[in-house]
Amino acid sequence: MSWIDVTYHLRGKAADAAARARTIAVEQSIEMPPEAVDDDAILSDVLGHVTGIEALEPELHAVRIQLAAATIGADAGQLLNMLFGNSSLHDDLTLADAELPASLQRELGSGPGAGLRGLRARVKAGARALTASALKPQGLPPAELAKLAHAFALGGIDYVKDDHGLAQQSFSPFHQRVTACTAAIRRATASTGHPTRYVPSLSGSLDAVRDQLRIIREEGLDTAMVAPAILGLSNVQQLVRDHRDIAFLAHPSLTGAARIAPAFLAKLWRLIGLDAVIFPNHGGRFGYSPETCRQIAAAARAPSGDLAAALPVPAGGLSLARVPEVLDFYGDEVMLLIGGNLLAERERLTEASAAFVAQVHHHAGAEIHA
Amino acid sequence: MSWIDVTYHLRGKAADAAARARTIAVEQSIEMPPEAVDDDAILSDVLGHVTGIEALEPELHAVRIQLAAATIGADAGQLLNMLFGNSSLHDDLTLADAELPASLQRELGSGPGAGLRGLRARVKAGARALTASALKPQGLPPAELAKLAHAFALGGIDYVKDDHGLAQQSFSPFHQRVTACTAAIRRATASTGHPTRYVPSLSGSLDAVRDQLRIIREEGLDTAMVAPAILGLSNVQQLVRDHRDIAFLAHPSLTGAARIAPAFLAKLWRLIGLDAVIFPNHGGRFGYSPETCRQIAAAARAPSGDLAAALPVPAGGLSLARVPEVLDFYGDEVMLLIGGNLLAERERLTEASAAFVAQVHHHAGAEIHA
Repeated sequence: MSWIDVTYHLRGKAADAAARARTIAVEQSIEMPPEAVDDDAILSDVLGHVTGIEALEPELHAVRIQLAAATIGADAGQLLNMLFGNSSLHDDLTLADAELPASLQRELGSGPGAGLRGLRARVKAGARALTASALKPQGLPPAELAKLAHAFALGGIDYVKDDHGLAQQSFSPFHQRVTACTAAIRRATASTGHPTRYVPSLSGSLDAVRDQLRIIREEGLDTAMVAPAILGLSNVQQLVRDHRDIAFLAHPSLTGAARIAPAFLAKLWRLIGLDAVIFPNHGGRFGYSPETCRQIAAAARAPSGDLAAALPVPAGGLSLARVPEVLDFYGDEVMLLIGGNLLAERERLTEASAAFVAQVHHHAGAEIHA
Repeated sequence: MSWIDVTYHLRGKAADAAARARTIAVEQSIEMPPEAVDDDAILSDVLGHVTGIEALEPELHAVRIQLAAATIGADAGQLLNMLFGNSSLHDDLTLADAELPASLQRELGSGPGAGLRGLRARVKAGARALTASALKPQGLPPAELAKLAHAFALGGIDYVKDDHGLAQQSFSPFHQRVTACTAAIRRATASTGHPTRYVPSLSGSLDAVRDQLRIIREEGLDTAMVAPAILGLSNVQQLVRDHRDIAFLAHPSLTGAARIAPAFLAKLWRLIGLDAVIFPNHGGRFGYSPETCRQIAAAARAPSGDLAAALPVPAGGLSLARVPEVLDFYGDEVMLLIGGNLLAERERLTEASAAFVAQVHHHAGAEIHA
């Protein structure tokens, strides 16, 4: 078997670290009680396991866990999902690092095409450091951005990039901006002799980004910028594979996104048309408070202009015993999601499911506290 | 002008809140010193502005800021970028909420197609709450997952979803899993009479997800699950527009991603082929420590199997005065990115750029501390 060595940093009491570490290993692999798994091969080959716990500070531990490479396939988004998908919701945890086995590394990617050396070579920089600047502020029309680009290039800057805020906006549409800035930089390089590169910022869906890359190629450019935390790592991965001759700069926008309020995300997901919002119920495996859950449910279904309501789906360690309480809390405009606690019933799975179903079906008109 | 009313929660001393709020308003709009902007229309129509500061606790304030809707276009990813892209990197800040003007809401989306009502109607649930469960653990072959699905459906569960960890994996390829589970649930519903829905989990790039939706349609299914924080909000937005008859469940995987160590992200971006990694330099506008920056630079360019090195690009408030110090820190295998501090030179932009360029070009062989 091939394993990923993951390191998490865990805040909390030393006495709790070992149990918490085992919980993380389960959460990021089989996500159900190991006792409820029959198949020995899954317990030996798929279940994550703790390989070490080391105190960094009295209440901070490095927890080392091995996760099975077979759960990833060759998709970078799935890698993030397995490393930190659910565990990202725990406040006590940081994903510190992961060492991938060589076979998985090869499946996921083959590293930069241009990279440090290629980016230096493009601007004939030899062994020196490179220079870059950014076109902004937002709101400038293409002609004004082009003036800035021209000035930067005249000064001999190596890479002139779009501000990451520049996108597909009425005051500066991508095509016009790129055409204008490219021409401006060409004029400058004709007089400086220095091969300054213009780096447009890509934004939108994978489709939109592909359209933008087509324009970039038409303009004879060979460098672009993406924000992986916004475009999505799987899409960035595909893009890089499809355009090995383009050099991509990665922008850190939104990489601190953990601190977005869950209820705001729910509101946004609803707005763009998602039909149901799954979230960890309070008192379950995650740290959300009743108040947070109330806000998520409200974001999903409270009246909001002419938007249809989305369905709140509390989950994360719900048990049959809690069904009445949870229905009292949310009312009936809800979907309850119970996974592990039903699966733990094993050969009684159908019966346990039926009991869950019956409990929910028979619940009626409780007071709504959510 | 049309404005977005954004609420941030800011930790820190009351005496500092007003200044910090103004900084955020600039960061999330023009991202350069307002004094350096000539165009009055940008100052009045694009520059963000603080509309209120309210103490929630002695060291926690609700900061209200208006951001121009014109900076968004119609792209949900760009919305996140403008609301929290760079500010997500500040440890003292949470994006708490945002009220969008009606025109922007319409451009971004039109809400759920099925939604709460449609999801109830699909399973003929009337006005009761719905039930759901999840197929797991990872590692089970399609036939075993199908047995679980069959058991759930026999129990009368409304929605049986894939565990969000199930993806395109050798032990359970998407196509075989979906075919097997769909058939199993059909057999169950033929005996129960209850229209249980199977909800496959979508994963991978937008291309991959479209292939998966084609299979879902071939199987006659009408519900699917996505993880917006992994697929990317712009892509999810496109997907929903293209498939209004499919009901989408949103999974919260990775929505707590702020706590991923920046150096690990840099390593991953390099692995999948990104050529340069932009990050906030220590001592600049962001809170990264020298140690964090050292780790990011190492992740980008330290020897790693046969991967080419990626280029570290420190940025975020770099000034000309700091160039020698920064080059001493990182050595010459680096690109320095200076934006606002050059733009602040205005009509001297070319000269200031040239001075920056000269400083970097003339730097040689300093000790590397990074």
